[in-house]
Amino acid sequence: MNAPIPFQSATCPLPLRDYPQIVMGHGGGGKLSAELIEHVFLPAFGLSDQVLSDSTVLDLPGHRIAVSTDSFVVRPLFFPGGSIGDLAVNGTVNDLAMSGAIPKYLTAGFILEEGLEIETLVRIAADMARAARDAGVCIVAGDTKVVERGRGDGCYINTTGIGLLPSGRDISIGQACSGDAVLISGTIADHAMAIMSVRDGLEFEAPIRSDTVSVSSMVQGLMKDCPNVRCLRDPTRGGLATTMNEIAAASCCGIELVESDIPVDPVVRSACEFLGLDPMLAANEGKFVAIVPGEDAERALASIRSHPFGRAAAIIGRVVEDPHHLVVAKTLFGSNRVVPMPIGEQLPRIC
Amino acid sequence: MNAPIPFQSATCPLPLRDYPQIVMGHGGGGKLSAELIEHVFLPAFGLSDQVLSDSTVLDLPGHRIAVSTDSFVVRPLFFPGGSIGDLAVNGTVNDLAMSGAIPKYLTAGFILEEGLEIETLVRIAADMARAARDAGVCIVAGDTKVVERGRGDGCYINTTGIGLLPSGRDISIGQACSGDAVLISGTIADHAMAIMSVRDGLEFEAPIRSDTVSVSSMVQGLMKDCPNVRCLRDPTRGGLATTMNEIAAASCCGIELVESDIPVDPVVRSACEFLGLDPMLAANEGKFVAIVPGEDAERALASIRSHPFGRAAAIIGRVVEDPHHLVVAKTLFGSNRVVPMPIGEQLPRIC
Repeated sequence: MNAPIPFQSATCPLPLRDYPQIVMGHGGGGKLSAELIEHVFLPAFGLSDQVLSDSTVLDLPGHRIAVSTDSFVVRPLFFPGGSIGDLAVNGTVNDLAMSGAIPKYLTAGFILEEGLEIETLVRIAADMARAARDAGVCIVAGDTKVVERGRGDGCYINTTGIGLLPSGRDISIGQACSGDAVLISGTIADHAMAIMSVRDGLEFEAPIRSDTVSVSSMVQGLMKDCPNVRCLRDPTRGGLATTMNEIAAASCCGIELVESDIPVDPVVRSACEFLGLDPMLAANEGKFVAIVPGEDAERALASIRSHPFGRAAAIIGRVVEDPHHLVVAKTLFGSNRVVPMPIGEQLPRIC
Repeated sequence: MNAPIPFQSATCPLPLRDYPQIVMGHGGGGKLSAELIEHVFLPAFGLSDQVLSDSTVLDLPGHRIAVSTDSFVVRPLFFPGGSIGDLAVNGTVNDLAMSGAIPKYLTAGFILEEGLEIETLVRIAADMARAARDAGVCIVAGDTKVVERGRGDGCYINTTGIGLLPSGRDISIGQACSGDAVLISGTIADHAMAIMSVRDGLEFEAPIRSDTVSVSSMVQGLMKDCPNVRCLRDPTRGGLATTMNEIAAASCCGIELVESDIPVDPVVRSACEFLGLDPMLAANEGKFVAIVPGEDAERALASIRSHPFGRAAAIIGRVVEDPHHLVVAKTLFGSNRVVPMPIGEQLPRIC
């Protein structure tokens, strides 16, 4: 039962299908999304793979800024624990925080569908304003376009964020080293299950709320307490599985996770089991993964746990040498399984 | 026939209707757009009217940057003279240039509709890359979301731009003074008529092409030759009429235009007459209005005309004192007419 698995052949060696048209999976944050970027955008724009990161560092004369852009198409617009307005602010703020930057400014671009209630837009704007205040950022520029009925879905929002990068700070997903510890800042899969429950009208033992929140202050605290943080990443679309695979690939290492150490709220776990969904593939909107040197693991954990949003933080695995750059999880039954990069998307329009 | 018009009562004194839902006109760049910003976004985000400008200047420690965001929903995606890809780059680059900034970086956020041909996306990305190269900007970050069939229209693009503002440069639409000259960098209404012709399958004496282009180098030349430029603005949605009214309102002045001096391509003029459209209300995507001190007018004109894209530039009017902040045009028949701020939009989804 527990014979060694030939991991090097455990992922599909075939190329993905060469789709002639956009499919929903191209927006899922998994392999199809990566292929679209790799085969369409990077060659056209003449960019390096560095842009595959969620934010980009720019050298201005005299200092560095981080820039990140994200469009939000979540359905429905309001869900337990938040709205598209919260997501649009927190999502971009968190992407900036993952580069080590201090988020400062946001722009907001709205694509509204004819017929949207103005009252709905007012609520969304109020949520954005509150989230921006909580995250310590200013919304400094905006734009509104309107499309005909049936050419949109109420409201889509793009936010682009600018953050200041303190000098000497160097965080990237390509820096994980064998022996490093992998931490998560709290429970996973809350956001995806909150969306699922409201979208499908499901009721569980207790209401499931999205975890949408800015992690910026938590990250600034961590960077202060533990300046040697190597990688930060927020497991949004594609979930923890995607984040772990991206770090393994970018850092040319393997990652070993211990499933029983990954915090999942019991109600969320039941919901996942009921729906047949893997929590590791489910989106989060207020969590981050940190990779720190092994000797700093406990200090980093204490730092994250000292923050109100980080009380459920945990050390969930370690970085290992692996020429195949696999992510492997020790299951609850003691066996090992490969955690592959998802191809398409488990839940469309989750953010 | 030519008795003085009581201009102070020549605009409708009634408030606009209090729409409970989004209508197409909220995206038209006219009064309805302004009301949405004023009554929904500005109060929510706690912003000043300064944000009504197309770009925002941010003070970073040590220097200033300009930031602008714009979403593009033009229909169709390709049209004579350009595509949504060209517009998405040139539109944001031009907004930055209008603040006096040197455009440097762009982000690109795509909202794709399931079923879009990948080949179409490749063409759009290639157009963006070419336009970015021509404008001297780098596309530094991106994001892609996919929505279901019938929830989008092929491809929507948000671009957000960052430019560097040379120290001492101070351009805003609030600085026009009585005695200043009003210049336009070329013919008006080309973009709107190009879109109309392809959308409605109309054929005119000659094909009408969009004027989409970056005006950044033209503006940098003007700023060098004529450092006292007071206002710059690109007359996109809502056309020249909107731009003139925005400047008059922001600067608390009146503007007198001479219709016969406003350059309009003869084929475009015929198309406008045929369709019953006012060229002053039609969108442009590669033109700008400059307001300069009267004594600098000829020098500014020569500077703009020395650029390949500025050969048809003209002095089209002057800034006057007017407590009612009206824009008045001397018509081709010698009479005067008020040029009001449009309420909704003449052509939906023009950019």
